[in-house]
Formats: sequence, structure tokens, C-alpha cells
Amino acid sequence: MNTFGNIFRLSIFGESHGKWVGVTIDGCPAGIALQESDLLPDLERRKAGATGTTPRKEDDIPVFVSGVFNGRTTGAPLTIIFENNNTRSADYETLRATPRPGHADFVLDKKFEGYNDYRGGGHSSGRLTVALVAAGVVAKKVIPTINISAELIEAGGNTDIEAAISKAVEEQDSIGGIVACKASGLPIGLGEPFFNSMESVISHAVFSIPAIKGIEFGSGFAAASMKGSVHNDAIIAADGTTFSNNAGGINGGISNGNELTFRVAVKPTSSTPREQQTWNKQTGTVEPFTVKGRHDLCIALRVPVVVEAVTAIVLADMTLQL
Amino acid sequence: MNTFGNIFRLSIFGESHGKWVGVTIDGCPAGIALQESDLLPDLERRKAGATGTTPRKEDDIPVFVSGVFNGRTTGAPLTIIFENNNTRSADYETLRATPRPGHADFVLDKKFEGYNDYRGGGHSSGRLTVALVAAGVVAKKVIPTINISAELIEAGGNTDIEAAISKAVEEQDSIGGIVACKASGLPIGLGEPFFNSMESVISHAVFSIPAIKGIEFGSGFAAASMKGSVHNDAIIAADGTTFSNNAGGINGGISNGNELTFRVAVKPTSSTPREQQTWNKQTGTVEPFTVKGRHDLCIALRVPVVVEAVTAIVLADMTLQL
Amino acid sequence: MNTFGNIFRLSIFGESHGKWVGVTIDGCPAGIALQESDLLPDLERRKAGATGTTPRKEDDIPVFVSGVFNGRTTGAPLTIIFENNNTRSADYETLRATPRPGHADFVLDKKFEGYNDYRGGGHSSGRLTVALVAAGVVAKKVIPTINISAELIEAGGNTDIEAAISKAVEEQDSIGGIVACKASGLPIGLGEPFFNSMESVISHAVFSIPAIKGIEFGSGFAAASMKGSVHNDAIIAADGTTFSNNAGGINGGISNGNELTFRVAVKPTSSTPREQQTWNKQTGTVEPFTVKGRHDLCIALRVPVVVEAVTAIVLADMTLQL
Amino acid sequence: MNTFGNIFRLSIFGESHGKWVGVTIDGCPAGIALQESDLLPDLERRKAGATGTTPRKEDDIPVFVSGVFNGRTTGAPLTIIFENNNTRSADYETLRATPRPGHADFVLDKKFEGYNDYRGGGHSSGRLTVALVAAGVVAKKVIPTINISAELIEAGGNTDIEAAISKAVEEQDSIGGIVACKASGLPIGLGEPFFNSMESVISHAVFSIPAIKGIEFGSGFAAASMKGSVHNDAIIAADGTTFSNNAGGINGGISNGNELTFRVAVKPTSSTPREQQTWNKQTGTVEPFTVKGRHDLCIALRVPVVVEAVTAIVLADMTLQL
Repeated sequence: MNTFGNIFRLSIFGESHGKWVGVTIDGCPAGIALQESDLLPDLERRKAGATGTTPRKEDDIPVFVSGVFNGRTTGAPLTIIFENNNTRSADYETLRATPRPGHADFVLDKKFEGYNDYRGGGHSSGRLTVALVAAGVVAKKVIPTINISAELIEAGGNTDIEAAISKAVEEQDSIGGIVACKASGLPIGLGEPFFNSMESVISHAVFSIPAIKGIEFGSGFAAASMKGSVHNDAIIAADGTTFSNNAGGINGGISNGNELTFRVAVKPTSSTPREQQTWNKQTGTVEPFTVKGRHDLCIALRVPVVVEAVTAIVLADMTLQL
Repeated sequence: MNTFGNIFRLSIFGESHGKWVGVTIDGCPAGIALQESDLLPDLERRKAGATGTTPRKEDDIPVFVSGVFNGRTTGAPLTIIFENNNTRSADYETLRATPRPGHADFVLDKKFEGYNDYRGGGHSSGRLTVALVAAGVVAKKVIPTINISAELIEAGGNTDIEAAISKAVEEQDSIGGIVACKASGLPIGLGEPFFNSMESVISHAVFSIPAIKGIEFGSGFAAASMKGSVHNDAIIAADGTTFSNNAGGINGGISNGNELTFRVAVKPTSSTPREQQTWNKQTGTVEPFTVKGRHDLCIALRVPVVVEAVTAIVLADMTLQL
Repeated sequence: MNTFGNIFRLSIFGESHGKWVGVTIDGCPAGIALQESDLLPDLERRKAGATGTTPRKEDDIPVFVSGVFNGRTTGAPLTIIFENNNTRSADYETLRATPRPGHADFVLDKKFEGYNDYRGGGHSSGRLTVALVAAGVVAKKVIPTINISAELIEAGGNTDIEAAISKAVEEQDSIGGIVACKASGLPIGLGEPFFNSMESVISHAVFSIPAIKGIEFGSGFAAASMKGSVHNDAIIAADGTTFSNNAGGINGGISNGNELTFRVAVKPTSSTPREQQTWNKQTGTVEPFTVKGRHDLCIALRVPVVVEAVTAIVLADMTLQL
Repeated sequence: MNTFGNIFRLSIFGESHGKWVGVTIDGCPAGIALQESDLLPDLERRKAGATGTTPRKEDDIPVFVSGVFNGRTTGAPLTIIFENNNTRSADYETLRATPRPGHADFVLDKKFEGYNDYRGGGHSSGRLTVALVAAGVVAKKVIPTINISAELIEAGGNTDIEAAISKAVEEQDSIGGIVACKASGLPIGLGEPFFNSMESVISHAVFSIPAIKGIEFGSGFAAASMKGSVHNDAIIAADGTTFSNNAGGINGGISNGNELTFRVAVKPTSSTPREQQTWNKQTGTVEPFTVKGRHDLCIALRVPVVVEAVTAIVLADMTLQL
């Protein structure tokens, strides 16, 4: 099930070391001004290159396959593809016997009975998030009055991110981080009481992003030790404005018009330069293991734009259902 | 969208003060031994009655409407209903002008243009979780070799739950809590790389439970400040057993055969006995407000069995897709 | 998969000889005036009683379980149930060894490994169409400006229906018929180019009605022997009015604003009074067989209101997606 | 909604005059041997070239974008694209004012508010059936023991198809036809009692093919004038073999193991060489009109392989749900 959404629906396809990765958006409204260059700023934010990111750099040039005509969306399925032009499959060939700890190598091999494209994680690669970011740009244009922004607020337990990265480089060990996302300008009434609450659908989308292991809305886990009289947000105006925002803009699963806020926990990149232990299928023993290939030391650096993208995708889909 | 699942699919219906609430399970395999009394132990766990729970007590007698014949499921839709026999609608009639803080009153009124059944939260009431628990019992029978258990591990910031409840009663203010859930016996390979990762689908289901504001899998938010060399779980056997379990039993969105672990944050019950402030639609001013009706002081006490239920529902659905 | 629709979604449940049959409509807009008595006229049209229909008569009193408050829909799931009060299960007990020809007895036994409720066809009974008719009444209220009507235009190959029924009674053999349906007042633009064309979705819904074996839109099968210059409907006005209507109101899968027209073929009731042959599981031989129970001689008499209902359901769902 | 299927799911994309058309199959089992050349025979059957088909010829070279690795499907989304290399957009530029009778020009313009790609029907073009045929080849490999075949049994009302084509060429007017499809080797139990009956899902898929206006299963419309004692198929063996096959292999919406049979009506190609009438948006009058571009005189010639494809897609999806 590589599909998401009810009205504004995504399907993603591709593998880390295949020829192309891409996305089809079905249900995008007609008439939205869109050109390939519109995608570049968000794609740039996702790119590697800074300290702490992988030396594998992709051009990430989006190509519209369908759904755009004379500079506007047509209402037909909108497919966007990206060429993979910087793959080194040889890096992975020797790796089949030893599933990388923290990665999906072991479970993919079992689930797909050995037929999965194991090069660089195959379809399960973070490479696929380029397609999410592309779809996110389109989604943002569907909801132009909603403003979404996500940022990395902590890395390796440190709010001084630059220092955290330097330390990780020095120690040659990967680190995680926390990304905070907020969105303003939401209409009241997005989401459904059961099963498709805003928290349900946003978390569903966010946990599609590799490496994310937690999400909390509004005061989140802190709410568990608060009292009701403190946690409740007093409604102070006819438009539903609340005095505080412990609810993160959601009551009973439905947007209340206040700012949507949530935070996500990003685990440290599984591909750490440090030596680890793993099972060797061929020798049948646990062996020391060092991951090869080119990897991010702090993948959390590249996550914020992806979180923004999936949030935009959810909000576009929900808005079209209002 | 009051429907959940792909193969084992739920629809729930009913309101807090309507005649019945219920659930239809479509896609339940035929031949599962099932009688109404099988549901009673889990329904009992969800019931009010203990210190810290509401004095509104329901009989919660499940009635099979369809889908069971001669003591076994038939493969046809299985509908279960519960009579609401302890409603006091008058408690709510005076409340329409003043939306209760923390509740969905305000957003439901907007979303449904005033036509929602506002008595006791209507369809958005926690009363509906009786239907989730009923479906959870059926789901558990679909996956008899998987063992799921959830418990309240913290209330009001205190791991001594009894003390926390006593203090809340004394202070007459509601409190939240943290529920930990674990499941063993999962096959390898549940979940999908994108969009339907285990984290995506479990969180989707869990956030259908009222009052939940956060979820974390495995080491969760703590992972954000861990190093890759520590966080990665070394694979130490051919069956995928790992030395540690920071991943919470999930790699790349797919079950790895180790124990599934996650925790959820439950906010303090919105209906606290303390005086609050809210907007009065009729007077057009912010006014002091005290919630009436009969409510739980610590709703988290009743959440574990519901978390178990939705986890069972997800795992049954995923197992049927393997 | 006993669910249908994208926005206006149905789930049906129940068995021929169970306690209740019913339907849940999820996604019905809030604010529609609706009371149980509104359903009676269409339910009456579906009822047995006339010559050629079964002597099993049901009261068919609809009971609203949820989703209606103060005489209007609330936007929450709307569940309607009907008690089965005229069942004679004993009629079927002796029948298990001999699957009735034309019925689903044989395939249900295989598909559900013997666990299906075999009394009167169980969940596969035409009894379930009472739930479709109920949902159809609600759907018609969602699209008050669209006028749908279906009628039986031929029975047993005869356009004089009364004569056809008399002959069937005389010959004591069941007959089929043809139902024509038309709908006016459709907006332009319902339906999708691929997969969810109007023909696709209407036929999907119509073939849910037991005993239907064919459907044709506009000129239908006759189109196969027409020439393009004759079949094409000339557009003669800015609003899309066409000179002829061979297309049945649909171009490229999308409504064109002209009258929607289609016809369906209803097979003769499988339960004919005539002696037949079938396999006896116990004796392992083909044996003469006479169906027992109370049955319709011409089920087509009761089909038009069901065709109207599913058409209304489709058009309501499509209109809500516009 | 350009998506179809529950487990074996298709999304199609592309336009008649865009750069590529394609399809993504999500949910294809891993391990199926598949190479691009496997698609060529069915693609060849769909191609133009014979008398009565369009002079627009495409190379129809399938390119695997993802989902195949080392000659086998991986279980990840399988995307296949085709370059459009023989487009003449200029043919259509002058046409915007005059919607072609029988085509979707008028409704697409309304539905997508003028933003649709109007060249050659855009996304609604029969060109997209190349993607269905490609997916059909994959589907056939998923169900290797089921044998599906469709053929044109009548064109322009004549069972001598060659004669019918010659006459159409001579008269310079397009003609329709009837395609018969049969499939053997089906397991018992495909399909669901309600909403997803075999007839429902097959008709849903078949009406996605442009130009189809009717479908009938087994004896179909003829059943409407048959008697029950004649129409019922006597079960004559323990495996469910029936003496006759008026049911077309389906009872109560579920496959009974006998041959699946159905017929579809194909309307005459809307683009007939004959002069017609249509509305001119610019002049505001009805005007004589002759369609330009290169078109099929009898599109029904190219339909059988597409019917086979969508049938295979449905049967693959249903088989995976058993």
C-alpha cells in the first residue's frame, strides 16, 4: 500500500538505485499554476551537502510526466519523476549476507522472500522522500492560505545544532534530533471524530518518513503530568481563539482554528561509521560490521522539509474534503 | 470516515446519549468461535467504577446483530450493539451556549453547522470506545498467537498510580497518564515501507482514542538524543532476534519479530471539576464555567484496554494481509 | 467488502433469518430533515404482497440507531435497522445437503468453509435489499434536485407485465424481466475518466442487487450495430443538450447533463416451483429437487425501487465529490 | 480516482499528447519473472495497423521504471511507462470551439474548468489503454493457472467481421461491435456477496475502457425472457460443475468454478469521417462538423486484448484476497 489520501491521493514508486523515483498525485484540482522550477526550493532544502549529510548528491531535477498543461494542473493524474544519477550499487553487493542493524535489510529480505531490490534499501530508501517533497510543493499550492513550517530544534540532545553536528563528526557516530512543525491559517473543522482524527492522519503520514519514532501534538507527553484545569485551553473569542494552546490546535480530532503544533523524534541515522555487530547469514555467526556507502551523520537535518511536505499533503486532502 | 482497516474493517456508530452504540466488522474470517460472553472481561476492564472514574455506569451487555451463527463467525459482517441505559441528557441541555474547554463542543458545532448531537459529546464521546473494545476482542481471536498487553505506567506524573488518584480526588482536578503497550509473537513482515508502516497504522488507530496526544515507538523521543552506535539493535540470531530493542520491534516500518513496544500520552480529562473560563455564545463574553455531568477524574485508568483493542485490530488486519 | 462509496459510504449487515438487518451510512451531510416514516413509501414499493411475489411478508419498520437528532441528520454515522419478524428457519434445515441451483448455497459453503449462515441464503439474501432501499431514501434527500425513476418494462419477454405474471402463475415457473432507469437533473461533470466512470460506478452498485445479470447505458447493446454518424449525439446548445441521447447521458465516463438512462436484465427467480436437478452432498449423486420455502415468482417486480436506491446512492456520492 | 483494486492496485497516468503514459501497480507479489519483452505480444494485439484502425502508430516500447530487479518483481510498486512518439497536436488546436460529438471534449471542459489537456482527449484518450494492457500482462502472470481470452464476435451487426470492416471503409462511417470474454480455471469463491460481487467488480473495470456501453454475464439480457426451470444450472458434481452455464460462472456474486463468460457492447468510434453537427462555442450556433486527426473506423477491433487485461487485473486482485 504505497498510496495515501482520500481526495488528494499519492502513489510513490522507485528505488534507491533504480533509474527513476517518482510520485503520482491523483485528485489534484485543475487550474493550479505549476512549473517544474517551483519545486526546486523545497528540493534544495532536502538535499545533502551541508556538514553532517551524505556526500551522495543528486541533481533532483523534477520532470513532469503528466497532469500539467500550459503551466497549470489539468485535474488528471500528475506524475513527477526524478532520475537517480549518483548510484554506486557495488557498495551494496557485498552486503547481502550481513543485514545492517537498524535498517530494513533483514525484514525486507523476509517479507519479499529475497526478491527485494536490496541496493541502498531499495524502495525503502530515504531517497523516496524526494517524491514526498515534490508532492508537498503541489499540496502547499492547493492550500495557499495555510502556512506550514518545520524546523530542527534539537540534535543529539542539544539545542545548539551546529555544536551537535561538530561533535558527531568528531566522534564519528550518528545522531538523532527533534523536529517541530507548526501550521497556521487552518479552517475549523478538518478531521473526523473517529479513525480520521487530525492526529491520526498526520501521524500516519509522518511515520511514513524513515527514521521517525515518535510524535506528540500540542503539549504532548508533557500533558500526561498536567492537570485538567491547566491543560484545558480557555476559549476566549467567538472564532474559537484559545488563551493557551496545549491542544496543538486540535479538539476531539478536529482542527479548532488555532495553530497546529506537533513535534517528531528522529532516531540517529542507522548507518553510523562506528563498528557494530550483526548476524552473518553465510557464516551463521554474529560478526563485527562496519557500514559502507555514503550516508548522513544526522539525517534529522534533512527531515524538516519532508515533515512540512507530508503535513501539507494531509491538510490539502482534508481541506478538499470539507 | 468512521471506518478503519483494509481487510479486517471496522465501522462504528452511535452517540453518547442515543439508544445504542455499535460496531460492524467487515472482513472477519469465518469459523472463529465467538459468543457474547467472550467480550465481558475486556468490557469490564474498560468500565467505570473504581476511584477516579465516572459514576455513570453502563451495563455494557453486547448484543450480536449479525455475523455469528451457531457460535462461530460466518464471514459476513459482524455487528455488535450496546444499549445506552444510563443517560441524563438534561445535564447537557443548558450547555449549548458555552462550549466546554478541551472538548470538541466548539468544533463539532462549527463542522456540522449546529446539527450535531451535542448531548455528552454525541458521536465524539468516549462512550464509543465500548465498540472499539468489542472489536478488539474479536481481533484478538483472529490472531491467537499474538499476545498484547497495555497498562497505565504513570498518572499525573507519578508512577505510584494509587497515590496519584488520591491526590487528584483531594485536589478535585483531573489528571493524565502514560500507557505502555507491548505485543509479542508477531510474525516478521507486517507493515509496508511507505504510508502503511506499522508506526503509521498503529498511530492512526491509537489517535482514534479520545484524549491521546502523543505516541512513541521503542526508545521513541529518547532516541533523538542517542547515538547510532547505541541505538542500533544488533541482530544476533538467524530469526532476527536483536540484542537490544530500541526499535520497538519495527525496522523500516515493518515488524522484525521482536517485541512491539510503544507508549502513549493521555491528557488529563477535559471535564475537570475546577472552575474554568470559556466563551458564551449568547452573552458574547468570556465567563467562568464549571462542567456538569458525571465524569472520570483520570480517564487514563480506562485507556489501556482500548489501546490493546486498537492494537489487536491493526495486527489482525495486517496479519490477514500477509 | 460490504462497503460502498467514497464520501457517502454504506455498510450493510444482517442475514435473512437473523434478528435484524441494517445499514450504516457514513459521510451523510448534516442537517438533512429525516424521520423514520420518510422511508415507508419506498419500503412499501419493495414489499411483497402482489401476485407473483412471496407470501413471506415483513413489517419493514425502520429504526434509527444513530445519526439523527431532533429530526435532522447530524453528520455522524447514520445506522438504520429492521427486525426480521417472519422467518421460518425450519424450511431450510433439511436443505444443507442439496445446494439449490441458481442460488449461492454451493459457493457460500465453499467460500466460508461451511460456517456461513445457510438459512435463506444468510447474508446473501435479497432480504438485505431492504437496507439498500433505506439508504436510497437518504441518498435521494442528499440530491433533491435529481429525479430518479425505475420501472419494470418487460417480464418473461412480455411488455404486458400483468399477462406475463398470470402466465407464470399458471405455469408455476419463475420468470425474469427488464428494468429501465432514468434520472434527470444531473449536473455536468459527475464521474471520472478512468476506473470511476459513471458506467463503472453505477454498474458496480447495480450488480450488488441479487439476480441482475446485465446492464446497458443509453443505446447499449444496440450501439454495437449502429454507425457512428447515427450513434453520435449532436450537441445543440451551450448547456450541452444533445439532439438524441444514445449516450444515455454519459460521455467519456462523465455525466453530460442530459438524461441518464440505463436498463438492467433480471434473471428468473432461482427458486422456481418446478422440479430441478442438483447434487446431493450426502448421497453423492444428482437427484431431483424441489425448492421449499416461500419465494417470489417474478423477483423483477420488486427490483425497480432497489435500482432507484443504488442509483441515488451513486449519484449522491458523486455529487458530494464534485 | 484513477486507481483500481484492493490488493493488486493500479494507478494510471498520462495524456494522449503528453510525453509519456504509464501505470503503477502497487501490491504485485514479489518473485514473478518479468521482463519488458513479455509485454510485447499483448501490446502488439492492441496496436493499430490493420484495416479499420488508425494510421497513428506508436512504438509502444514498455520501460520499467521500478519494481523489477534481476528479472523478477520485487514487491515494491511496479511502474511502467511508454513514450508517446507519434503525436500531432496541431490537429487539435483548431478544435477547441467545437466539442466533438460522442467524445468527452464538452464534459471535460466543464468538469476541469477549461484546464484539461484537450489535445486528443488528453487523459481520457484511448491511448491510456496501453497502460491497462501492460498491467494486464503482469496480472496474467499473477494468476498463471487462469486462462482468459476475449475476441470480437460481431462488428457493425455482422458476425463476418472482415466483411463488416470492408463495408465501413466503403461507407466511410465508423462501426461498433461485440466482444465476448471467457475465463477458465477460476477457483471457487472469488467475489463478495454485496458490493464486490464478481459482476460488480468486472463491470467496474470493463467500463473503464472507452467506448463500452453494455455488459452481460452468462445468458445476460436473454435471461430476462427465460424461465427459472430453464435458466437454473443444475449442479452435477461435487466440484460444482453445472450442466448448463447460464450463470456465466457466477452465483450470488461469487465464482462457482465453471467458466466465467461475459459479453460487452462497443459503440461505434465517435470519430467518424462523416459530417456531423455540433455546437460552436465561439459563434454560438450549431454548425456542420467534420472530425480531423487519425482515427480508428472500428475501435472494437482493438478492444479484446484490453478486456482481457482488465479481466486479468480483477481476477488477480480477487485471487490475492482469497
